[in-house]
Amino acid sequence: MKILITGGAGFVGSRLARALLARGTLDGHGIERLVLADQFAPADDISADRRVQVAVGPLLGQCDDVVGARFDGVFHLASAVSAECEADFDLGMRSNLETTRALLLALRAAGNSPRLVFASSGAVFGADPPFLPVPSLVEDHTLPTPQTSYGTQKLVSEQLIADFTRKGFLDGRAVRLLTVSVRPGRPNGAASGFLSGIVREPLAGIACACPVALDTPVALMSPTRAVDALIRAYEASRAELGGRSALILPALTLRVGEMLEALERVAGKAVRARVRLEPDARIEGIVSSWPAHFRAERAQRLGLGADASFESIIEAYIADHPEGVARSAGAAR
Amino acid sequence: MKILITGGAGFVGSRLARALLARGTLDGHGIERLVLADQFAPADDISADRRVQVAVGPLLGQCDDVVGARFDGVFHLASAVSAECEADFDLGMRSNLETTRALLLALRAAGNSPRLVFASSGAVFGADPPFLPVPSLVEDHTLPTPQTSYGTQKLVSEQLIADFTRKGFLDGRAVRLLTVSVRPGRPNGAASGFLSGIVREPLAGIACACPVALDTPVALMSPTRAVDALIRAYEASRAELGGRSALILPALTLRVGEMLEALERVAGKAVRARVRLEPDARIEGIVSSWPAHFRAERAQRLGLGADASFESIIEAYIADHPEGVARSAGAAR
Repeated sequence: MKILITGGAGFVGSRLARALLARGTLDGHGIERLVLADQFAPADDISADRRVQVAVGPLLGQCDDVVGARFDGVFHLASAVSAECEADFDLGMRSNLETTRALLLALRAAGNSPRLVFASSGAVFGADPPFLPVPSLVEDHTLPTPQTSYGTQKLVSEQLIADFTRKGFLDGRAVRLLTVSVRPGRPNGAASGFLSGIVREPLAGIACACPVALDTPVALMSPTRAVDALIRAYEASRAELGGRSALILPALTLRVGEMLEALERVAGKAVRARVRLEPDARIEGIVSSWPAHFRAERAQRLGLGADASFESIIEAYIADHPEGVARSAGAAR
Repeated sequence: MKILITGGAGFVGSRLARALLARGTLDGHGIERLVLADQFAPADDISADRRVQVAVGPLLGQCDDVVGARFDGVFHLASAVSAECEADFDLGMRSNLETTRALLLALRAAGNSPRLVFASSGAVFGADPPFLPVPSLVEDHTLPTPQTSYGTQKLVSEQLIADFTRKGFLDGRAVRLLTVSVRPGRPNGAASGFLSGIVREPLAGIACACPVALDTPVALMSPTRAVDALIRAYEASRAELGGRSALILPALTLRVGEMLEALERVAGKAVRARVRLEPDARIEGIVSSWPAHFRAERAQRLGLGADASFESIIEAYIADHPEGVARSAGAAR
């Protein structure tokens, strides 16, 4: 079978690509071809696999090729991120709305009703004051009221995918990923960036600031759980999915202070001490507008669960990214 | 001030135009110019008003002119209808999604952050089995799960308007109109058509079929209430609106049999006898997927109410459309 991952060189896309290549099959069928479409080339270990084909460039320009390729399955992860879309409205409309629309029309034009998993986001939820406060508990039927252009574009894409699915043009499934932590790499300026940074930076021996109060609750998922959710959503039958509406996912809910306590338990007092409290009212405002508690019954019925603990997330990060861990961080282990 | 009505020659658009011309003001400002954009020309009594300017043609092609015109206010009613969008998917995507997007971008490009009222629809609601049944009661926070392309496109437009509003590009308000009854004119083949037809046709002396069981509950609003809601949504302050989410509206909920009883009380036994029961499983299926009960608290706080009775709706129809009433229909009055 032939699979496309849009955003296939990104953080989640790369992990998904590696997971699919390692499995070799998806929904019981062998993966003969894995096309990674992205603005950037994937990592060498991925592009070296003979099943992998790389398509570098803007996705919007690649949609004609998508028609011709007749994919059996698509993971649509490509997206401008939240902060980018707030800073550049036109970029978000083009990358997240126009591109999704063009991709859906191309998949319809291919005529083989491929399966599609869309990486939506918990950013579809928010407060719409004074009408709606931040939901104290997000459930499958909670009304999304996005408070960013990014969240709006994700919700709009979900709805288009549901309608294309109803019409039989494709077989779409949308999963709302939560903030993924721990992300490797450099700080990216996103408001959620510190939820990775306060672990990644001190582990690398770098001092960093925590911009919110320690009792702030947050909802997280590990990269592994994110990839698991995408694959499970792909392999679920329509009956298992139980409706065309987007799936929320189980969250690990904890306070930011508990994240730092977990860091201390895993990596030691000295590592944790590299995180200083430096409240930033702007970021506190944004983070407090995110719901922290999720009851994801439909996803749980698919066998998807939350991460067991933040310690396990940190340990997996250290195992996956030994290059990102200063020698001193291991001292406590 | 300068006002644009898209779909300004349609049934609701024409009534809105007449109402605005009769008032002469909107939100306390005199209406100097009323532009009616539509595929068709408006009725002569409307186009004869020296404040009216007519723009006939596809709205998508008129968006450049919208930029130049710098409207103070816009009522965006233009839309392909539900049945058309199901029969011709591309038409719906173009007329209801591309056109709304182009209009919003044109209004943003004009740079004066105009006020905009969008005629959305109760068709955003539906069942998504087995996840969600048809909502037994629709409230302001009920999750929309559209089951038609039309409903999807309306919901998507609502979300884009909310985000354009959040960004300050315009000041948007979306109201979800219910099935409007009694519509004049010929049967249009829409699944909801009989909700006007079973009054209009017998009043005109024409026999007609009622395709659903008499105990089927339906949610209706009169053309007058629809126009009232659009104007009130325009004139409401942001504080009164209480959030950017779309407004549901108060419904007159009654059973189809009660509609016929009202018809008999207003127009006599002989008129009612022109309606024969002829159940149509396809239409019964569609109509039973529409929610019938609404609790529209936000709209009620704006002073909007449901019609008092179906009799009053029929009486208003007869008064407004004497040409559509056969002489015999008056016999019982």
